[in-house]
Amino acid sequence: MSTPYITIPEGLPGIRGPLSLRPEVAKPLSALAEVVMRADHSLTRGERELIASYVSHLNNCYFCDMAHSSVAQHYLQCSSDFMSTIKSDFNKANISDKLKAFLTIAGSVVKGGKHVTTEKIEKAKALGATDLEIHDVVLIAAMFCMFNRYTDGLNTWAPLDPAFYSARAEQVAKDGYTIKSH
Amino acid sequence: MSTPYITIPEGLPGIRGPLSLRPEVAKPLSALAEVVMRADHSLTRGERELIASYVSHLNNCYFCDMAHSSVAQHYLQCSSDFMSTIKSDFNKANISDKLKAFLTIAGSVVKGGKHVTTEKIEKAKALGATDLEIHDVVLIAAMFCMFNRYTDGLNTWAPLDPAFYSARAEQVAKDGYTIKSH
Repeated sequence: MSTPYITIPEGLPGIRGPLSLRPEVAKPLSALAEVVMRADHSLTRGERELIASYVSHLNNCYFCDMAHSSVAQHYLQCSSDFMSTIKSDFNKANISDKLKAFLTIAGSVVKGGKHVTTEKIEKAKALGATDLEIHDVVLIAAMFCMFNRYTDGLNTWAPLDPAFYSARAEQVAKDGYTIKSH
Repeated sequence: MSTPYITIPEGLPGIRGPLSLRPEVAKPLSALAEVVMRADHSLTRGERELIASYVSHLNNCYFCDMAHSSVAQHYLQCSSDFMSTIKSDFNKANISDKLKAFLTIAGSVVKGGKHVTTEKIEKAKALGATDLEIHDVVLIAAMFCMFNRYTDGLNTWAPLDPAFYSARAEQVAKDGYTIKSH
C-alpha cells in the first residue's frame, strides 16, 4: 500500500483522498465530472467512460483506469477482455469506426493538444462526428489528463481488488459523481 | 490565424471559444479556476499564476502561457525577462528555494503523475511546504495539463499581440475567472 505524499484520512482510495481535504475544490471537480460524463449527450455514458478508461490507461493511472473501466463495463455490459482489447489495440475491438476515430483523438490529447491534427478531426467528421462530440471527446481526454495526474501526483492509495471497483461502478451508475461517490 | 476544429463564435480567443459552446461545462471549469487560482491560500495569487504559466510553457500552449504569464506579471509586478528566466531555467531566477521546489514538482506533474517522487516532495517539505501547498501545486499543474490540452486540442485561436494579454490580465485580476473573463 503506497503512502500518499500528504496526510489523507485513511481508507479513502484514489482521488477521494485529496478531495476530502479540499471540499471547495471537490465541489467544482465533481460538478465537472458529473456534467461531462453523465449529462444527456449523443455520446453514451458507456462511450464516455470507455474514452476515460483508455486515457487513464495511457497515463498509467491504475486507480482511474480500474475505476472507469469498471463503470464502462457496467454501462456497456461488456467483458474485461473487451476492455483489455480497447487498451491493447482498439482497432481490433468490435466498436464503431466513429468510436475508433474518437479514441485516436483522445490518445493524441494525452500526448499533448497539438498532437490532435486536422486529419484526425476530418476522419471523425467523415464518420458522422458532430462538433459537440468532438468538443467533448477532447474535453474528456483533457479532463482525465488532469484527474490522472492529480491522483498519481499525490501518490494516492489504489485498492488492488477488482471487486472494489465493480462495487464502486454500480454506485457511480446509481448516484453519479457526487463528492461522496467519486 | 488558425481555424478551430469546431465552429466557434468568431473573435473569442483561446479557451473562451469552446467554453462559449458549453455553458454547462464552463460553469464548473470557471468555478474550479476561481477557487484554485484565487481563493485565500498561503500560496499567493502571483505564485499560483507563475506555476500555471510555467506548466503552460512546458505544454507548449501559447494562449495559456501568454495569458497566465501576464496575470503573474500583474500580481508579481515583474518583468517579461523575469518570466522568461522562470521558463528557461528557474534555478537562475530570484525566487525562493521553496518556489523552486514547487516548480520542480509542477514540471514532474506535466510529464505524468508518477514522475513526482518522494525526494521532490521531501525537498519541498524541508523548505517549509505544507501539505495544503503541495496538494495545490500538484492540482494547479494537473489542472493546466487539462486547460492546455483543451485549448490546443481544439486548435483554438490565440491573439499574437502581447497587449491583448496585458489588458486581459488586468481584467482577470479585477473580475476573476468568471465565465466572461476566462
